Amino acid sequence: MAQKPSIPKGTRDFNPEQVAKRNYIFNTIRVAFETFGFQPIETPSFENSDTLMGKYGDEGDRLIFKILNSGDYLKDVKNDVINSARINASFGICFEALRLELEKTVNIGHRYDQLLNSFSSVLTNRNDTQYLIRFFEKTKEEFISFFEEIRKYHGEEKSIKIIGFKNNYYFSFFKEYISELEILNSNKTVSKISEKALRYDLTVPFARYVVQHQNDIEFPFKRYQIQPVWRADRPQKGRFREFFQCDADVVGSKSLWQEVEFIQLYDTVFSALKLEGVTIKINNRKILSGIAEVIGASDKLIDFTVALDKLDKIGEEKVKEEMRAKGISDEGISKLQPLFTLSGSFESQIESLKSILNTSEEGKKGIEELAFINTAITELGLTTAALQLDVTLARGLNYYTGAIFEVSAPAQVKMGSIGGGGRYDDLTGIFGMKDVSGVGISFGLDRIYLVLEELGLFPETVNKNVDVLFINFGDKEALFSLKAIKQLRSQGVNAELYPDAAKMKKQMNHANKRAIPFVVLVGDQEIESNTYTLKNMISGEQDKVSLEALIAQTKK
Amino acid sequence: MAQKPSIPKGTRDFNPEQVAKRNYIFNTIRVAFETFGFQPIETPSFENSDTLMGKYGDEGDRLIFKILNSGDYLKDVKNDVINSARINASFGICFEALRLELEKTVNIGHRYDQLLNSFSSVLTNRNDTQYLIRFFEKTKEEFISFFEEIRKYHGEEKSIKIIGFKNNYYFSFFKEYISELEILNSNKTVSKISEKALRYDLTVPFARYVVQHQNDIEFPFKRYQIQPVWRADRPQKGRFREFFQCDADVVGSKSLWQEVEFIQLYDTVFSALKLEGVTIKINNRKILSGIAEVIGASDKLIDFTVALDKLDKIGEEKVKEEMRAKGISDEGISKLQPLFTLSGSFESQIESLKSILNTSEEGKKGIEELAFINTAITELGLTTAALQLDVTLARGLNYYTGAIFEVSAPAQVKMGSIGGGGRYDDLTGIFGMKDVSGVGISFGLDRIYLVLEELGLFPETVNKNVDVLFINFGDKEALFSLKAIKQLRSQGVNAELYPDAAKMKKQMNHANKRAIPFVVLVGDQEIESNTYTLKNMISGEQDKVSLEALIAQTKK
Repeated sequence: MAQKPSIPKGTRDFNPEQVAKRNYIFNTIRVAFETFGFQPIETPSFENSDTLMGKYGDEGDRLIFKILNSGDYLKDVKNDVINSARINASFGICFEALRLELEKTVNIGHRYDQLLNSFSSVLTNRNDTQYLIRFFEKTKEEFISFFEEIRKYHGEEKSIKIIGFKNNYYFSFFKEYISELEILNSNKTVSKISEKALRYDLTVPFARYVVQHQNDIEFPFKRYQIQPVWRADRPQKGRFREFFQCDADVVGSKSLWQEVEFIQLYDTVFSALKLEGVTIKINNRKILSGIAEVIGASDKLIDFTVALDKLDKIGEEKVKEEMRAKGISDEGISKLQPLFTLSGSFESQIESLKSILNTSEEGKKGIEELAFINTAITELGLTTAALQLDVTLARGLNYYTGAIFEVSAPAQVKMGSIGGGGRYDDLTGIFGMKDVSGVGISFGLDRIYLVLEELGLFPETVNKNVDVLFINFGDKEALFSLKAIKQLRSQGVNAELYPDAAKMKKQMNHANKRAIPFVVLVGDQEIESNTYTLKNMISGEQDKVSLEALIAQTKK
Repeated sequence: MAQKPSIPKGTRDFNPEQVAKRNYIFNTIRVAFETFGFQPIETPSFENSDTLMGKYGDEGDRLIFKILNSGDYLKDVKNDVINSARINASFGICFEALRLELEKTVNIGHRYDQLLNSFSSVLTNRNDTQYLIRFFEKTKEEFISFFEEIRKYHGEEKSIKIIGFKNNYYFSFFKEYISELEILNSNKTVSKISEKALRYDLTVPFARYVVQHQNDIEFPFKRYQIQPVWRADRPQKGRFREFFQCDADVVGSKSLWQEVEFIQLYDTVFSALKLEGVTIKINNRKILSGIAEVIGASDKLIDFTVALDKLDKIGEEKVKEEMRAKGISDEGISKLQPLFTLSGSFESQIESLKSILNTSEEGKKGIEELAFINTAITELGLTTAALQLDVTLARGLNYYTGAIFEVSAPAQVKMGSIGGGGRYDDLTGIFGMKDVSGVGISFGLDRIYLVLEELGLFPETVNKNVDVLFINFGDKEALFSLKAIKQLRSQGVNAELYPDAAKMKKQMNHANKRAIPFVVLVGDQEIESNTYTLKNMISGEQDKVSLEALIAQTKK
């Protein structure tokens, strides 16, 4: 391999500094998850394909990474192709025999029409292997007797070109037949050569876990999961093919206290990360359903919310235009007017919603839920985050049935949402376990990383760098050094010996390049007096110290 | 999906207790890695196939999980199949035309032989698509003129059966051709439908990382990596298709102090895990090469070491038998005699080796290295592990060039090795970066887990369970409780509220089932007096306490 090796697009190597920073975020989230009573589970990186496929829509299915079966994965496909090729060949032979015979006949009349009909039925049924086999078996005999009849009737000598039955007919037939080879359709073949797939998110594997282990689980079950997921998405800035998700979910409880807890959990994590100014936006599916009901567009809920969701980006007029285009009546849209001007405090927005939704039972239920959550949060208080009602919020609407959450980074950072979640009333239904309500939130690690980086919020101590490097002056000195290093390590000091007795300058450069804060020099003098020359690489100060002092000065 | 979902064979779900125990091991290893100056990197789960393929031998390649390309992954294969099928069909037609003509000819003599030769050349070259296309184009015309000639010469009336050219010849031809379809060979097709593969270990991705980022790395580079790897191995007890590796390696230093450090690192980790009685076995490739040289079997190094490696299992006589069977001379084997009785201290074994290897320069170098390491370790001391010279140790011989390590669990536990490693002088050579020496060790997480479990060595506090559950008597009480819970959490106490105002008994059962040690009851009385009734679920004791006392008593 002459050229430098590389990694697949959309994936990343992480160097020690990046790993340390990522772990800082993971650990902060993990500690918060655990103090809130969530417990960790882990699921396999790949699941059986039928666990994942069909759960994320067509677009999602397309983005799932499939794993090739081990061993002779093409066996089944190969058999299909061989059968198909054999049938092709048989047809080719059969048709050529026919052509050769027909070339010798004169005016075959209605029998010729019959044959053409047979061909056309073949073309119609060409994807039905069993039909083709039966057709070939049956018509072979018919053809032969037909030829014999023509031969007898017209005699062998006569030879008239038959119009319409072109010499190359069979070629175009094959071309058409083969180019549509159903057996080698990428979508249909995948289930024959791949039975496993990399997980696409943590929610479906969690639902699978709950159903599979339902007898061992004490409900309500609060779990968290921090693991990578994979999507065959087109990579772009901030979008990767492998990335971590950090999810916390509760299953088996419809209590709204869960929503209250999740808002506090967001606040706790972002406060611990010193990320101030985060906005936790909340909405409720029932509010959106209620509005659709009130404007007479219950059947257009998705269209309506998709349009409303764009209010921030395209403005009021364009939203209305899109709604009109989707068939929402002018009368309905006029009823929406208060929505476009909805602003102010959570409480005043709730009051406006009450007047808009006063005829919708579902809408009123949504208002009640939002009000309960807001009252509790107001009583409990948030440390650094703000809770905001956003009736245009509709993320994952098909999925959520109650609360919908989305977290925005502080306004001064240009970044999409850094977290989201909501309630979904039938999480485990896809695996046959009905009526288990779930509610959960997720943290967007990569975006949080970028935000902390941009705002300079990573602690200086985040990097688990080496604290002390011992310069190596030779084997005797190295051994003496390693005894001290052993003591330092037992006290939690990250310490190491330069491995070779290289030139002093090279060793000092190594310490500098790695930004190691302390260097220790041990020569004859030090060994004799059982001391260590400790050099502070930042201040340049240098001191002869005892082992105790060495530990005390380098320990963080 | 009616039946309960499951996970792919060889993979595992981990419940909260298992995750906690695994993390306890990971964290212990991680802390030790860092105090020893190793820094973490992470690499993508999947690599480009050409990074991995061919690095682990044929058997390894077979066990690598391949990822199907996204989109229309069969496009190229399909084109090949279509071309091939078209050629098949053309041949079928061509041959049938020939057969029909031949049936009408008499005594075609040498021209018939010529044709048979043509067929046999087709059969020989049937995997060469271009040849087949040319052949078909060329022979079509030849056939036609040949038929014309025969027709003219013999006349149309005559019809003699031609011996040896069976009616169904073309069928058997197709069968043979198609069943060997090279285009659908699983091994050869894989590169057309898969460009990525899940990593098989952490060593090759690390080598790739070092070469790719060589300009950003300060050498010697000490990295650790704790990530899952995947192997399509037949699952069995203790062998999984997804498992974690924990590796620490140094690249860019040939210093033997690294070997000394790695032995200390093993000792540090197992001591921290309270796993006493671990044996760190060491050998050196140069010792094995030296012995092979001395017995005149340098060309049979692998055979020789494979046999020697079995000494523990099959005994001296069978080992000798196997060596004889592999062609090692009796004279050579007799020189090995001291090896079979090698025992006692590291030092006395070294002395015996000196007498065996006194004519081998390489052997003497190996002895020197082992002696250096042993002297240093004796000086530095090990906390709980023992270092043992084992000249039969040969793991991964093709790979290692110097020290070879293997760690055995304490004798009372039946378990294979729980760690291993060694020095490999040309780690990055596979990616074109020469002369970079590497040395590293690995910890076998799954086996360490089983050992700790069997010996009851997991700390009781390993499970990050909820410390306090607040009973929910209604919304007012819940809100009061959540205020206290917020305080508890900020002090690091894992606390939660039962989400619904369910029956007291149900809530207490929930606490019991989850083994939550403390329950807090908050009713009107408590709210009024701003106190909390704290129940110790183990002792059954119950007390009314202030918030401060509540925190103090539940904090770990």
